[in-house]
Amino acid sequence: MDGFLLDGQLRRFLAEDIGQGDITTDAVFTANPEVTAVLAAREPLVAAGMAEVAGRVFQVLNPEVVVEYAMADGEEAAAGAILLRLRGPVRDILRGERVALNLVQRLCGIATLTRKYVALVAGLQVQITDTRKTSPGLRMLEKYAVRVGGGRNHRFNLSDGVLIKDNHIAACGSIRLAVENARATVPHTIRIEVETENLAQVQECLDCGADIIMLDNMGLAEMRQAVQLIGGRALVEASGGVTLATVRQIAETGVDIISVGRLTHSAPASDISMDF
Amino acid sequence: MDGFLLDGQLRRFLAEDIGQGDITTDAVFTANPEVTAVLAAREPLVAAGMAEVAGRVFQVLNPEVVVEYAMADGEEAAAGAILLRLRGPVRDILRGERVALNLVQRLCGIATLTRKYVALVAGLQVQITDTRKTSPGLRMLEKYAVRVGGGRNHRFNLSDGVLIKDNHIAACGSIRLAVENARATVPHTIRIEVETENLAQVQECLDCGADIIMLDNMGLAEMRQAVQLIGGRALVEASGGVTLATVRQIAETGVDIISVGRLTHSAPASDISMDF
Amino acid sequence: MDGFLLDGQLRRFLAEDIGQGDITTDAVFTANPEVTAVLAAREPLVAAGMAEVAGRVFQVLNPEVVVEYAMADGEEAAAGAILLRLRGPVRDILRGERVALNLVQRLCGIATLTRKYVALVAGLQVQITDTRKTSPGLRMLEKYAVRVGGGRNHRFNLSDGVLIKDNHIAACGSIRLAVENARATVPHTIRIEVETENLAQVQECLDCGADIIMLDNMGLAEMRQAVQLIGGRALVEASGGVTLATVRQIAETGVDIISVGRLTHSAPASDISMDF
Amino acid sequence: MDGFLLDGQLRRFLAEDIGQGDITTDAVFTANPEVTAVLAAREPLVAAGMAEVAGRVFQVLNPEVVVEYAMADGEEAAAGAILLRLRGPVRDILRGERVALNLVQRLCGIATLTRKYVALVAGLQVQITDTRKTSPGLRMLEKYAVRVGGGRNHRFNLSDGVLIKDNHIAACGSIRLAVENARATVPHTIRIEVETENLAQVQECLDCGADIIMLDNMGLAEMRQAVQLIGGRALVEASGGVTLATVRQIAETGVDIISVGRLTHSAPASDISMDF
Amino acid sequence: MDGFLLDGQLRRFLAEDIGQGDITTDAVFTANPEVTAVLAAREPLVAAGMAEVAGRVFQVLNPEVVVEYAMADGEEAAAGAILLRLRGPVRDILRGERVALNLVQRLCGIATLTRKYVALVAGLQVQITDTRKTSPGLRMLEKYAVRVGGGRNHRFNLSDGVLIKDNHIAACGSIRLAVENARATVPHTIRIEVETENLAQVQECLDCGADIIMLDNMGLAEMRQAVQLIGGRALVEASGGVTLATVRQIAETGVDIISVGRLTHSAPASDISMDF
Amino acid sequence: MDGFLLDGQLRRFLAEDIGQGDITTDAVFTANPEVTAVLAAREPLVAAGMAEVAGRVFQVLNPEVVVEYAMADGEEAAAGAILLRLRGPVRDILRGERVALNLVQRLCGIATLTRKYVALVAGLQVQITDTRKTSPGLRMLEKYAVRVGGGRNHRFNLSDGVLIKDNHIAACGSIRLAVENARATVPHTIRIEVETENLAQVQECLDCGADIIMLDNMGLAEMRQAVQLIGGRALVEASGGVTLATVRQIAETGVDIISVGRLTHSAPASDISMDF
Repeated sequence: MDGFLLDGQLRRFLAEDIGQGDITTDAVFTANPEVTAVLAAREPLVAAGMAEVAGRVFQVLNPEVVVEYAMADGEEAAAGAILLRLRGPVRDILRGERVALNLVQRLCGIATLTRKYVALVAGLQVQITDTRKTSPGLRMLEKYAVRVGGGRNHRFNLSDGVLIKDNHIAACGSIRLAVENARATVPHTIRIEVETENLAQVQECLDCGADIIMLDNMGLAEMRQAVQLIGGRALVEASGGVTLATVRQIAETGVDIISVGRLTHSAPASDISMDF
Repeated sequence: MDGFLLDGQLRRFLAEDIGQGDITTDAVFTANPEVTAVLAAREPLVAAGMAEVAGRVFQVLNPEVVVEYAMADGEEAAAGAILLRLRGPVRDILRGERVALNLVQRLCGIATLTRKYVALVAGLQVQITDTRKTSPGLRMLEKYAVRVGGGRNHRFNLSDGVLIKDNHIAACGSIRLAVENARATVPHTIRIEVETENLAQVQECLDCGADIIMLDNMGLAEMRQAVQLIGGRALVEASGGVTLATVRQIAETGVDIISVGRLTHSAPASDISMDF
Repeated sequence: MDGFLLDGQLRRFLAEDIGQGDITTDAVFTANPEVTAVLAAREPLVAAGMAEVAGRVFQVLNPEVVVEYAMADGEEAAAGAILLRLRGPVRDILRGERVALNLVQRLCGIATLTRKYVALVAGLQVQITDTRKTSPGLRMLEKYAVRVGGGRNHRFNLSDGVLIKDNHIAACGSIRLAVENARATVPHTIRIEVETENLAQVQECLDCGADIIMLDNMGLAEMRQAVQLIGGRALVEASGGVTLATVRQIAETGVDIISVGRLTHSAPASDISMDF
Repeated sequence: MDGFLLDGQLRRFLAEDIGQGDITTDAVFTANPEVTAVLAAREPLVAAGMAEVAGRVFQVLNPEVVVEYAMADGEEAAAGAILLRLRGPVRDILRGERVALNLVQRLCGIATLTRKYVALVAGLQVQITDTRKTSPGLRMLEKYAVRVGGGRNHRFNLSDGVLIKDNHIAACGSIRLAVENARATVPHTIRIEVETENLAQVQECLDCGADIIMLDNMGLAEMRQAVQLIGGRALVEASGGVTLATVRQIAETGVDIISVGRLTHSAPASDISMDF
Repeated sequence: MDGFLLDGQLRRFLAEDIGQGDITTDAVFTANPEVTAVLAAREPLVAAGMAEVAGRVFQVLNPEVVVEYAMADGEEAAAGAILLRLRGPVRDILRGERVALNLVQRLCGIATLTRKYVALVAGLQVQITDTRKTSPGLRMLEKYAVRVGGGRNHRFNLSDGVLIKDNHIAACGSIRLAVENARATVPHTIRIEVETENLAQVQECLDCGADIIMLDNMGLAEMRQAVQLIGGRALVEASGGVTLATVRQIAETGVDIISVGRLTHSAPASDISMDF
Repeated sequence: MDGFLLDGQLRRFLAEDIGQGDITTDAVFTANPEVTAVLAAREPLVAAGMAEVAGRVFQVLNPEVVVEYAMADGEEAAAGAILLRLRGPVRDILRGERVALNLVQRLCGIATLTRKYVALVAGLQVQITDTRKTSPGLRMLEKYAVRVGGGRNHRFNLSDGVLIKDNHIAACGSIRLAVENARATVPHTIRIEVETENLAQVQECLDCGADIIMLDNMGLAEMRQAVQLIGGRALVEASGGVTLATVRQIAETGVDIISVGRLTHSAPASDISMDF
């Protein structure tokens, strides 16, 4: 993740939460002594966004805040483990607290959930990827958390990947035509992916040389048939309603990629405290 | 919610998702016919953000998109119910789809969960409120969804409410001093709220005339004692780890307000589809 | 005032004044030696915005500019007194001069005028507050100057305070209905204020439990009656055309708050020079 | 003034005043009926910014607001005169009221004061101009108000005019050198102006062909001598502490331009009401 | 190209050129009559950016400007041909003229040059693509012009394509390691491209399964050998100093893609006039 | 050029090129060692934008990047000459490379071409100036490069210079009226320039006292006559299709200024390499 790009976002998040200033802290504190603040896990989690996100929030407020310790992103924290230790003026620590916590609770939540999906497919040749079902305005951060959790990223936005869906196919008349249109205009650096709903569509994709074939909401039996039919001639992505309960079975069908919207749209926030 | 303020946010969200342009749609469609798109509930939910948010996403892309029908925000939709029907050029509908869905799935999720909390305290004189534990950059929208679900809003940011917490008290030396400092500087339009952890602190708050007393992570028995002790001399807010399982009991202690972080930080997204 | 929020404003102000660059200074100076610049009061004034605003202007241009001395905000300066002494490259000092002076002349003007109002009510239990009648884009700074001068801030914007005015009442049908509507939706952290024009309206406010009653443009006798009628059951704010000539008499009616638009909309700029 | 440039500013001003939304209006109004609102002069004034600024504020909030009547900018309004009549949804009118009033009260104040200065020099060949002593962020608007009042604009910013001041001269060693440096680099479209404090400096300016000579804080007698000495070989600008009491005498010395900081930094706001 | 994204850029370009307003036009025109303006080619060119860019410039200034005729992008215009005919208020036409011309002269210049390259490889199975050597801030527009001219786009930015260059290889130790690292982290939707300088490196790429092999600044003979060696197992891109004189020979080596920096960094502006 | 203003532009340019992050570099580099990078001229050129622009690009990404050597702007570099030597973390150097090169290749191209024009008029009293025919969004930088090359700047934008063109004259009815209108409103610091197409118009300009007379697309003989006719009563600017082949002859007609659009709209990029 690029600190250069992140700072602008953090400033917007801080402005949202600070408004015209922290009137409580301004009123209550007559001095502004240095304090040490500690972020700690209240439940087991995968650390994500410690120094680069949570620490950075405070440094955007005041460059003199020092990150004294940060658990490495990707490390697994037990309940009670210290995630981050900061030192800085008390007012800056208090002003940044909520934004920092809101961010890392979400990022750790996503990394933790991703890690669970990844663990469930251990030993198989399959990637767990995210989708574009992210919180608006937070995609760069949430996709980072997926990588931290051991997942992979699907396309970032509509311009860095091609995914031909049912509506595109319907409008074009056929998968072949849609794929040919795409191949005639999109950069050669980008693979062409097509969403399919049945084996007939899978066959059409193979006939016109689609690079990636997505099996959308197929049953396990049909997926297995599709994987066989494709036989390595295209990458195969399973998609649609994947849960912790179903991911292993799906992986065992032999697909190359499983994309999971839940990683980002429904991961519960991790419970993290900040204390002095 | 203020459309004037929302549009700027929607433009940022769209830019994040569109990047340099929707290369799939641009490649596949040679024409740009008008289509009708329908958002429908795939599970029971409370509608939130239909015309003003989801519909607006498409109109920001193209002012000619027409909202033909929108379920009123706050209405309860059964699985399968139509939430929104739009008419506009197919390219604009496709470009806006993901942002619109990402937003309303989250907003309906929050409204739906809020409605559950509110229902559980039916018949009691208590408000269910949100907290500042919102997704960074989405606070205005998420607090709107809480209101749609029947909840109330706590302070929006650090400058429109006073909340004296443990760290403030520790730094000041006493609740009294903190409250006096606050009363000496904050606008008279804003009430002074103090977070307490035990009955002794509640008594201190009463002694110095705090306007609102937050009972933070207290047990039910202690809460009941606190409500009795306060006896209407201040508003009483219960806070800390409130769940659907505990909210009714907490409400029955007689508190005036129950603030629930889960409303926004962990509401699962509602399942909503978009079809042509 | 929050340096984090201020910097963005200062950059805009500097861009407005610098345009494409200071062509005079660029043309005339072949070198860029360090100089010491001094801001001094040309008339008695209350210092406001010295290190944090004026000094910061130059540091935004060049972080190497050093503030060697700054009179504390709130201190009273005699004519001729040094307010700020800076050291930095001559080009940066010259480029920032006009913006720094335009800001502090206004802020000192506001602080100085506020101090006069406050002095006139010395010994009485009354707050002098500002209004929303500030220069567009400068509210955070102007409200800061009011605090520096010893005044208090009224609500900052339309979302952090409730003020039910004549138009609201007319549209609602009654004060009671308007107050009840407000109480049913606004955060519990915010008091409800109602603007009244006569004693009948004051009574209505009392009947429905308004938290703050504004006496708008009432005569002194009527104000006194209103204060008596209210009898401590609500905060009382006097408003409307308050001048240095009338503020003491108004205060002596027993009101709790006097809001004064003149503090910000018509304070004459303080006369301040910058010399090398 | 350029509507294209103004809209961005108005949006910022509205965001400052509206915050997260007008909670009073949102709470009180259940419907949003069309109303007619009228801005009227409470004292004699020169109208400035009526349709293009005040009217535009409301249209930025809601393009459906209609300006039914606007007094032409520059026209003199008697106390009680109607300045602007609008029709639009009540909520938009109320949300925009304060920003619109804050702007036009300032603009009319500047135009009215400018008109007084201009009237005092009637019959003489002299221009009354503003300076860069404007409210940060409001320069385009305030300079517009000066033109509406009959004044002229001095340079807008540091890049569209050359003004060699005492510090420049001191640093360069001589007026000649400073002027030659400037002539060697600044665009040929821009005249070179030099600030002088005595007749010797005026003579130096003439010797090196300065285009405009500013007489800074000179007495009337010395100004007269300077005008004679210059004898039409350069434009002559008087500057420094010009008041309504002194402007006529200064003009009668024969100078071409009188620049008046007071036009913008200390004009009292005009008193304007908005009623339904 | 996405009008939604373009408008923000056009506003910035207009603000750069208009500054505080068009003082000449404002001074000279007392009225603002409708006029018809015509953009015409002064030399043969490929039209690019007519209605969507040039026309849009004026509509951003004033939505009432009407595009009465626009030559389709991609069409070849003879000297003298009318490219665009607009109708609108004279002030808006004059204010937008320079920005509109600066844009379309550049875009037509790029499209025209691209067309020449494409024509020279007619009949061969090869794509002419652009590079990232575009004018900072204008990439979306310049890449659009390349497409209009018949060229294809290479990656848009550093996040939507992988290109492993000499520095990456040196730092990693081997092509194999670099490719494996990339394959382990980048989205499956993106192909992996490696820059090679000799046949040994080409062989390394084949050994580790690179998707695209760039032949950087190779001679024709070596290119031919590389194409043979690769034998369809990867896409082949020729790059480096390609000119109109050399492009055909390069294409005849059998490469799939020829990327040409000159398309954007050195295309001379097309000569286009605007008249009333 | 003002670093304060430049940084914001550089951040936008970097965001355009970096997108969501440099996925190649992030994937390939496991460490981030310090490297030394060198920009070198591949052909003779005039250095422009070395430390302040190219160096600054990298420092915006990471303030710890050190510029170890930079050729002074304006110096002539032979092919192979080192222009800039930087030291910093390899990832930051790679991320900034393209933007830095795109900028300096353009700036050096402009400075180099300007130098050629200036050299061709050596010994004559004439200025070579640019025009407003710059790349949208890059005017400040491109006009800086013109100065570096020894040229002068014409007006920066529509508000810091007056240029009455054929359309203005046609709309006004006469040159005299247009000049009088301009003189009645534009700041006294700005000269009035009129575009003329023949000697009759030149005479009209003289009759009404235009400050600068532009001879637009006149032949050499007519230019000479115009210069004679004007006889020093106004500055004379030649404009229109000036090339390296014609500039000397034009200068010898005795004009004061020659404005050359080619300096910015068609200067070929200089060839510059970056190596470790």
